[in-house]
Amino acid sequence: MSFAKPVIRIIGIVLLLLAALMLMPIVLLAGSQDWNVFIMCSAITAGCGTLAMGVCRTPINRLNPNQLFLLTVFSWVVVSTFASLPLILVEQGLTVTDAIFETISGITTTGSTVISGLDGLPRDILLWRSILQWLGGIGIIGMAVAILPFLRVGGMRLFQTESSDWSDKALPQFREVAKTIVLLYLTLTVICVLCYRLVGMDWFNALNHAMTTISTGGFSTSDQSMGQFTAPSILWISTLFMACGALPFTILVRFWHSHDIQLLNDQQIKGLLISFAVPSVMLAVFLAQQTDTDFFQAITVTTFNVVSIITTTGYASTDYTLWGEFPIAIFFIITFIGGCSGSTSGGVKIFRFQISWCLVREQLRKLVHPYAIVSRRYNNRKLSDDIIASAVAFAFIFFLSIAVFTILLCLLGVDLMTSLTGSITALTNVGPGLGDTIGPAGNFASLPVGAKWLLAIAMILGRLELLSVLVVFSRDFWRR
Amino acid sequence: MSFAKPVIRIIGIVLLLLAALMLMPIVLLAGSQDWNVFIMCSAITAGCGTLAMGVCRTPINRLNPNQLFLLTVFSWVVVSTFASLPLILVEQGLTVTDAIFETISGITTTGSTVISGLDGLPRDILLWRSILQWLGGIGIIGMAVAILPFLRVGGMRLFQTESSDWSDKALPQFREVAKTIVLLYLTLTVICVLCYRLVGMDWFNALNHAMTTISTGGFSTSDQSMGQFTAPSILWISTLFMACGALPFTILVRFWHSHDIQLLNDQQIKGLLISFAVPSVMLAVFLAQQTDTDFFQAITVTTFNVVSIITTTGYASTDYTLWGEFPIAIFFIITFIGGCSGSTSGGVKIFRFQISWCLVREQLRKLVHPYAIVSRRYNNRKLSDDIIASAVAFAFIFFLSIAVFTILLCLLGVDLMTSLTGSITALTNVGPGLGDTIGPAGNFASLPVGAKWLLAIAMILGRLELLSVLVVFSRDFWRR
Repeated sequence: MSFAKPVIRIIGIVLLLLAALMLMPIVLLAGSQDWNVFIMCSAITAGCGTLAMGVCRTPINRLNPNQLFLLTVFSWVVVSTFASLPLILVEQGLTVTDAIFETISGITTTGSTVISGLDGLPRDILLWRSILQWLGGIGIIGMAVAILPFLRVGGMRLFQTESSDWSDKALPQFREVAKTIVLLYLTLTVICVLCYRLVGMDWFNALNHAMTTISTGGFSTSDQSMGQFTAPSILWISTLFMACGALPFTILVRFWHSHDIQLLNDQQIKGLLISFAVPSVMLAVFLAQQTDTDFFQAITVTTFNVVSIITTTGYASTDYTLWGEFPIAIFFIITFIGGCSGSTSGGVKIFRFQISWCLVREQLRKLVHPYAIVSRRYNNRKLSDDIIASAVAFAFIFFLSIAVFTILLCLLGVDLMTSLTGSITALTNVGPGLGDTIGPAGNFASLPVGAKWLLAIAMILGRLELLSVLVVFSRDFWRR
Repeated sequence: MSFAKPVIRIIGIVLLLLAALMLMPIVLLAGSQDWNVFIMCSAITAGCGTLAMGVCRTPINRLNPNQLFLLTVFSWVVVSTFASLPLILVEQGLTVTDAIFETISGITTTGSTVISGLDGLPRDILLWRSILQWLGGIGIIGMAVAILPFLRVGGMRLFQTESSDWSDKALPQFREVAKTIVLLYLTLTVICVLCYRLVGMDWFNALNHAMTTISTGGFSTSDQSMGQFTAPSILWISTLFMACGALPFTILVRFWHSHDIQLLNDQQIKGLLISFAVPSVMLAVFLAQQTDTDFFQAITVTTFNVVSIITTTGYASTDYTLWGEFPIAIFFIITFIGGCSGSTSGGVKIFRFQISWCLVREQLRKLVHPYAIVSRRYNNRKLSDDIIASAVAFAFIFFLSIAVFTILLCLLGVDLMTSLTGSITALTNVGPGLGDTIGPAGNFASLPVGAKWLLAIAMILGRLELLSVLVVFSRDFWRR
C-alpha cells in the first residue's frame, strides 16, 4: 500500500487541476447554460482530489519505475471517470457508457464520437469536449517526453534525452523543459485560435477547433466535422497546426531556445513530411482525374484529410470513402502511420517504421554480403539491439491487440469491416474508421454497449503505447 | 554472364524433370483425352531444357549465395511458365493470364483458382493441377531445408542444421537428407491416397486430393472443394495429412531415422497444435450454440476448416463465412499464422510469432526489472540479435507488401475487402479470401486481368519468403 500512496497523492493533485478546468467553460463562455452542473462536478472532483491527498500524506520523492507505470495507467482512467461527470449530469445527458466512451475518446485525443446532433448541443458541453482533448494532448506530450523514454517502452528509449533524466541532478533542467513545453503548447493554441478567427471562424469555433487541432484530437462542433467550413484557407490552417501537433515537442523546445534551424533536420520530421506528401499527391491526381475538380481544390481536400488521419486527428472535410476503392485503401493504410514520438499524435509512429526499414535495408545487404559489417544508426544515434527488441515487442502487441479486439467486436455481432477498422482507429487514436457505421460520415452511437467499452479500453491501450498498460497486469509487476 | 551460367544449367535440369512429369497424366490415367497436348508440351519443355543445358556447359560447382538467390527466383518463374502450357493448349484452354495465375497458384501451393466448373474439366487437366501442387510442395521443402537457412532469409538461420551446411565435407550427408525427404514425401502421399480410398473416395479423387493435401495446396476436383464429400472420416483424414504437411520436415527426417519420440517435443510443433486447437474449439462451441449441430459434427467441420487455413491449404468443406461475424474474424486472423518452417505451408510461420512473443515477455520483465539479464532461447537454442533483426525485416516487408498490393488492387477497382484479403491470402499462400468474390464459396475468375497478375506475383513473393526475391532486385546484388 505504501507503494501506491505517492501515486494516489499525485492523482489527487491532477484531480484538483481537473476541477479547476471544469470551471473553464463557465469562464470562457461568460456564464453557461449548465453552470450549476459544472460547478457541482468541479466540487465533487476537487473533493475527491483533496481526499486522495489527505489520505496519502507521504512526501512525493522520486518514483520508481513501477510507481510511474501505475501512475500512468491510473491517472488516465481516474481522470476520464471524473471528466465524464458533466456529460452525464447535464440535462438530457449521455448514458454512463456513452459518456465514458466520449470522455476517453477525448482525453486520448482519439476523436471518435457517440453523439449525433453535435450542432444542437449546449455550447458548454462542446467546449468541455474540446478542453478534454486539449488536456489529453499536453498530458501525452508530458508522458512521452518525461516518462515513457525513461521507462524504455516500445523502443522509446531512443528518445531518452536530458529531459527524461530523472536523477536529482537533472531535476531543475527537467522542470525547465516541462515549463517550456506547456508554454509552447499554450502559444501554439493561441496562435491557432487567432489564425482560425482571421480566416473566418467565429471565436467559439476558433477556440474549440484550435484546442482539438493542436492536440490532434479531432472533436468538432458539428456532425459535418470540418465539412461545415467551405473556405480552403481554414483547411490549410488546420493542416498546418495538425502537423505542428504531430511534431516531436522535445525538438520544438530546443528550437524555441536556440533558434537553430538545423534541429528541424530530423529524420522523424522528414519521414513525417514525406508520409504527408506522397498519399496527398497521389490522391489529388486520382481525384482530379476522376472528377471535374481542379488540382488546387483536390490537393486542398486530400492534404487536409491525409494529414488529419496521419497525425491521428480524425477531422473529415468530406466523406472520402465516396471517392472510390483506391482512396479507401490509402486511408485504411495511413491510419497505421501516426506522427512523431513526443507529439500529441498516436499510431505506430514514424520512427518505428524507419527503424524497420533500416533493418530491411541492412538485411538485403547482408544477404548479398553475409560478412559485411553494417552499423545501425537512426538520427546519428546508434540503434542498439535493445531498442530493436522493444520496438518488435511493441509492434507484435499492437497487431495482436488488433486481432483480439477485432475478434471480440465480431463476437458482439459487429461486422468485420467495422470491427477491424474500429479496433485500428481506436488503438491508433485516429478517430474515424471505415464502413457505413463508423466511417468519416458516421459515428459510434449505434454500436452495442459492449463494443463501446472495448473500444474505450483500446483507446487507452493505444494512447499509453500498450506495454505500459500491460506491464501493470503482469505477474512480475506485483511480485516483490 | 558466367555468373548466371550454372544457374541456367540447373534450370535446364529442372525443366527436363518437369517434361517427364508432364507425361504423368497420360501414364496415370492410362491414356488421356489430351495426350497429344501433354506430349507436345513435354517435348517443348524438354527441348528448352536441353537447349539451356547445351548453352551453359559449365560444371556446376558450389554456387555462391547470389547464384542461389537467382536460382531460387528464376526456377519458380521459369517452371511456372512452362508448366502453364498444357492449360493454354488444351481444347477450350485458359487465357494466358488465367493459365499463369492457375499454374503459379498451383506451384506455390496457394490453391486459389480462376476456374469455375472444375467438375466438368478433363481429368488430365485436373490431375495436372494436382501434380503442380505436389511438385511445388516438395520444391519448397527442399528450398526451406537446404537453401533458405543457408541464405539467412527472414530469421530462418534459426533452422540452420547439418542439412543446410554447404561445405564439401557435408555434401554426402546433405544428399542423404535430401533423399530421405523425397522418400518421406512420397511415402506420406501414398499412405494418404490409400487412406482416402479406404474411407470412400474413388482412386482418381484419392490421388488428386492426396497430392494437394500433403503439399498443403488445396486444389480440388470440384467447385465445392471438400464439400463434395459428406463422410466425416474424409475430413478427419484430410485434417491429419494437412497437419503432416505443415510439420517441419527436418525433424520428421530425423524422426524417420532415429524413431526418437523426443524429437517431436519441439516448440514449433507444439505451437502449431495449439494454434489448431484453440480456434477449432472456440468455433465449435460457437457453432453448436448458434445452430442445431451436435458438438462432434461441429468440431469436425471447424477443425477441418481451421487446419485447412492455418496449414495454408485452403480447402473449404462449407462456406464458413455464413456462420456469422465471429467466425469470419477468426478465419481472417488465422490466415496469417502459417505452419512450421521447413514444411510445405506458407504464412508468417509459427516460429516468428513465438520469437515475437518471447520478446514481449522479455520486455514486460525488463520494464519492471530494467537491469535483469534475460537469456533469449527458442527450442533450447540461443536467439541471436541477428535472427531477431532478420525476422523483423521479414515481418515489416510482409506487412508493407500487404499494404502495397491492397492499394494496387484497389487502384484497379477491386473493393477493399477483396483487395485486402486477396493480398493476404496470396502472400501467405492460403487460397481463399473473404467477401463475395474470392470467399471460400467463390473464385478468382471475375477479377480484372491486372489483379490476377498482381496476385500471382504476390504468391511467388510469399512462397519465397519475400526477401529472397527482393534481394535479386537490390542494387547490391548486381554490383560486383
